[in-house]
Amino acid sequence: MQTDIKIAQSTQLQPITDIIKKINLTSDDIELYGKYKAKLSFEKIKALESNPLGKLILVTAINPTPAGEGKSTITIGLADALSKIGKKTMIALREPSMGPVMGVKGGATGGGYAQVLPMEDINLHFTGDMHAITTANNALSSLIDNHLQQGNELEIDQRRIIWKRVVDLNDRALRKVIVGLGSPFNGVPREDGFDITVASEIMAILCLATDLADLKSRLGKIVIGYKTDKTPVLVSDLKVEGALTLILKDALKPNLVQTIYGTPAFVHGGPFANIAHGCNSVLATSTALRLADYTVTEAGFGADLGAEKFLDIKVPQLPKAPDAIVVVATLRALKMHGGVPKNELENENVEALTHGFSNLERHVNNMRQYGVPVTVAINRFVSDTKEEIATLKKLCQTIDVPVELATVWSDGGEGGVALANTVVASIEKNPGQYQRLYDLTDTIEEKVTKIVTHIYGGKSVAFSGKAKNQMRELKQNDWDKLPICMAKTQYSFSDNPSLLGAPSDFEITIREFVPKIGAGFIVALTGDVLTMPGLPKQPAALNMDVTDEGVALGLF
Amino acid sequence: MQTDIKIAQSTQLQPITDIIKKINLTSDDIELYGKYKAKLSFEKIKALESNPLGKLILVTAINPTPAGEGKSTITIGLADALSKIGKKTMIALREPSMGPVMGVKGGATGGGYAQVLPMEDINLHFTGDMHAITTANNALSSLIDNHLQQGNELEIDQRRIIWKRVVDLNDRALRKVIVGLGSPFNGVPREDGFDITVASEIMAILCLATDLADLKSRLGKIVIGYKTDKTPVLVSDLKVEGALTLILKDALKPNLVQTIYGTPAFVHGGPFANIAHGCNSVLATSTALRLADYTVTEAGFGADLGAEKFLDIKVPQLPKAPDAIVVVATLRALKMHGGVPKNELENENVEALTHGFSNLERHVNNMRQYGVPVTVAINRFVSDTKEEIATLKKLCQTIDVPVELATVWSDGGEGGVALANTVVASIEKNPGQYQRLYDLTDTIEEKVTKIVTHIYGGKSVAFSGKAKNQMRELKQNDWDKLPICMAKTQYSFSDNPSLLGAPSDFEITIREFVPKIGAGFIVALTGDVLTMPGLPKQPAALNMDVTDEGVALGLF
Repeated sequence: MQTDIKIAQSTQLQPITDIIKKINLTSDDIELYGKYKAKLSFEKIKALESNPLGKLILVTAINPTPAGEGKSTITIGLADALSKIGKKTMIALREPSMGPVMGVKGGATGGGYAQVLPMEDINLHFTGDMHAITTANNALSSLIDNHLQQGNELEIDQRRIIWKRVVDLNDRALRKVIVGLGSPFNGVPREDGFDITVASEIMAILCLATDLADLKSRLGKIVIGYKTDKTPVLVSDLKVEGALTLILKDALKPNLVQTIYGTPAFVHGGPFANIAHGCNSVLATSTALRLADYTVTEAGFGADLGAEKFLDIKVPQLPKAPDAIVVVATLRALKMHGGVPKNELENENVEALTHGFSNLERHVNNMRQYGVPVTVAINRFVSDTKEEIATLKKLCQTIDVPVELATVWSDGGEGGVALANTVVASIEKNPGQYQRLYDLTDTIEEKVTKIVTHIYGGKSVAFSGKAKNQMRELKQNDWDKLPICMAKTQYSFSDNPSLLGAPSDFEITIREFVPKIGAGFIVALTGDVLTMPGLPKQPAALNMDVTDEGVALGLF
Repeated sequence: MQTDIKIAQSTQLQPITDIIKKINLTSDDIELYGKYKAKLSFEKIKALESNPLGKLILVTAINPTPAGEGKSTITIGLADALSKIGKKTMIALREPSMGPVMGVKGGATGGGYAQVLPMEDINLHFTGDMHAITTANNALSSLIDNHLQQGNELEIDQRRIIWKRVVDLNDRALRKVIVGLGSPFNGVPREDGFDITVASEIMAILCLATDLADLKSRLGKIVIGYKTDKTPVLVSDLKVEGALTLILKDALKPNLVQTIYGTPAFVHGGPFANIAHGCNSVLATSTALRLADYTVTEAGFGADLGAEKFLDIKVPQLPKAPDAIVVVATLRALKMHGGVPKNELENENVEALTHGFSNLERHVNNMRQYGVPVTVAINRFVSDTKEEIATLKKLCQTIDVPVELATVWSDGGEGGVALANTVVASIEKNPGQYQRLYDLTDTIEEKVTKIVTHIYGGKSVAFSGKAKNQMRELKQNDWDKLPICMAKTQYSFSDNPSLLGAPSDFEITIREFVPKIGAGFIVALTGDVLTMPGLPKQPAALNMDVTDEGVALGLF
């Protein structure tokens, strides 16, 4: 089969002004960014608020493995299939970060015949949202350092500044830096570091804000550090939430694009799924619900991390909870969870598959705890054997979960019709009754413990001495009624990435808490969390080029 | 009078698709960025190459003072006046940097009734060109540090890396930093620093490149540092010029906007005028010449720095040299050059004006050396007295230079009609015969000496020991046939910012050379050159805000 970029570039795109007619928008409602990208105006978003809400389908997955599960591809293909069976459908996806694009991973625009387009633009600068977030984040840093330099009226303790700078690149050399060197005219020397832009709290805020006023209010609540007396210093103390909102005003507007088959898609916001909630923007998802009868959206990583955060952090900001959840798996990945090494995944191995099913089973049961009907989607690979497929279907029967094969990567929407019909049937049969995992009034310890025992399947939680002190401080600052955003390896239910399948009897250690008051959650760190990736020995950038006419080459 | 932003926001903009009809473009030729901004396609730029060339008017100024001279305002107002008298006119201006916008200076979109619009967008993210340059610059840095980390096959001397990171902000704390700290997994510790984005060599390259192929070729020639054996390391050695070009492919397309009076304007590229050449892009200026009968463009700082670089560095990349040069002055600024302190400028002072005229006189004579007819434009202020104006007119007569008052700030195009008529007459009367100040085959010493003695009016040049060594190295590397880009204070003809008027008998010291081989010039540093500004005690950001509906407030 052709590469993703070849398929994308051989697709005849429709003008976005035509695509939006499918969801009853007109060119007055949008701001064009070239012929195939647009932002939806705030006026229109406001005007849509009285529209009835469509159905929401959340796509999540088993714990990711190097074999890959193709969650974005299934999300896009399922939406194309829903369009194909006559449903008015929209997609709500995250925007890619340029760091991984230049590094190793490629973009986040799906694959094969299930892609959002124009993939070259979406994977590079798109409509500039990432750059606006980078700029707002670093403008805040420059204003903090300027405050120190100009007399430090707020008495900020320079050793306790927690606000870091960002770049939208994989750049390990910036993880830990010393700034302010060289002369008294160059600021106050202090330790600092750069995260990747998608790890910025501003990205999480942008994705949870419901309008410009909410965005400004949340930006004002960001804790940038502590005073010498240890009281928190907020952005509103610096009086720059207005300027930051101004920098972000266009980035808050959801971006409209299309799939290969012309399904309209919002691609907007892309918070890191480890130290943030990892879902596209509330504004895009909410608006899609008011424009389409079916909205398909995606949560980052596996269901233990991404879907849990979607359901416990994002859903309370949405006008409704999901009507259906799709858990994506591949036979290859399940065999890895069953103990097969990566280089033997092509071989049939029913026993390993049966063993690895435990991972899928736990995710399905976890999702059912939220009261939402679940369907399993198998992203089919050529190497999958009949015997393996039959085995998986039987295993799914044992836990009474519908399962469908999907071949959207090779067949586009057509390859997802069976899945679409099953998901629609599950929604029609079972209206669902969403319930949260924990109450916001639970203590932080209770909230973390519920996640660990009910979702991860762990035995208990250990809190470090630092974490215990922080729980007291969080309570003192009145921040203990916020939801928890877990930072844990995505590869295992546990905090040990090599424990595949469905481990049990393990303890999770909470090393540290990080208050993200603007975003409105408390991050619980279970280990070293990498917030700035590095580049590999042969970065993807080495293969990139552009023709003299401007055609992108080697994106992947 | 109202503030610039109030005037801008009370203007009824025309759709850019209508504006471009004035220069015979259609909506097929452009990519829209909202309703009022667009980029011109490469296809159209190519198709225009056989068009006849219009007239080029270069706007420059006396040495800037805190009193201000209003060069951008005159540029825009002159173009509106040319439109008004029936000439098909375009503007070719630089893009503002967000650093000064958040800091103190405000934007660079003119003032009063001589502005390019939408000023809020142009002064913030515009079409993302600055962000693309920031990203390309920093992607290169990440690839350099990754090369060190992954074994340093090219044997780059980490102490001799001259490529710096950038942000498009005023952030003094980033001037000098140490990166790569914390662990062996965080790269190789080394000294680094951040410049403001507009100081990046990539910005200078973007502004001098004639097409994507030329852009890629120039990016490949960037010297990022030296090997342990002191041979230069180029971007092409890292094999990433293709990726950098890909990141910049849309940024290279000129941006189309409009003035308050609907004159079409290219606003594209914004290299720092101190360590780069400080003019808008060659592609925008060349294309404007093929679309309009008159193109008005601007060079940075005073004529000693900006216009000299325009004429000796940019013009050889253009299809033609300027047909006319306008030197802008204000009576207030001339009085400062004549010795009046800033707080006494409102008072009539004919004697100081007469004394300060020496600054204007030298600039006019300098420009005449290039064989181009010169007109003086007086940007009129309310406090200017009849006596002062009469005096200046008489002084201009003594050197036989036409002079016109302009009131475009308060009156728009109407206030520039006399100036427009005079400039048109000067072009029709005197076809001009451009000649360079120096030959590229001159030695570096000869080139620098010609600039210092013929333009600055200095007596001689002293080269530091380091500079002398570098001249040998530049010759060894075959870089001595490039033009010189002087880095000098903009406030004086000399390298001492407090020497106003027309100093003579001074010596200029060349401290150091910096090879900018991608841009295609050698920077000669005459003193400490600030390539990263700082924020003031009360940054402009403190006044910025946005309404709940998305209207920008407090931009200035």
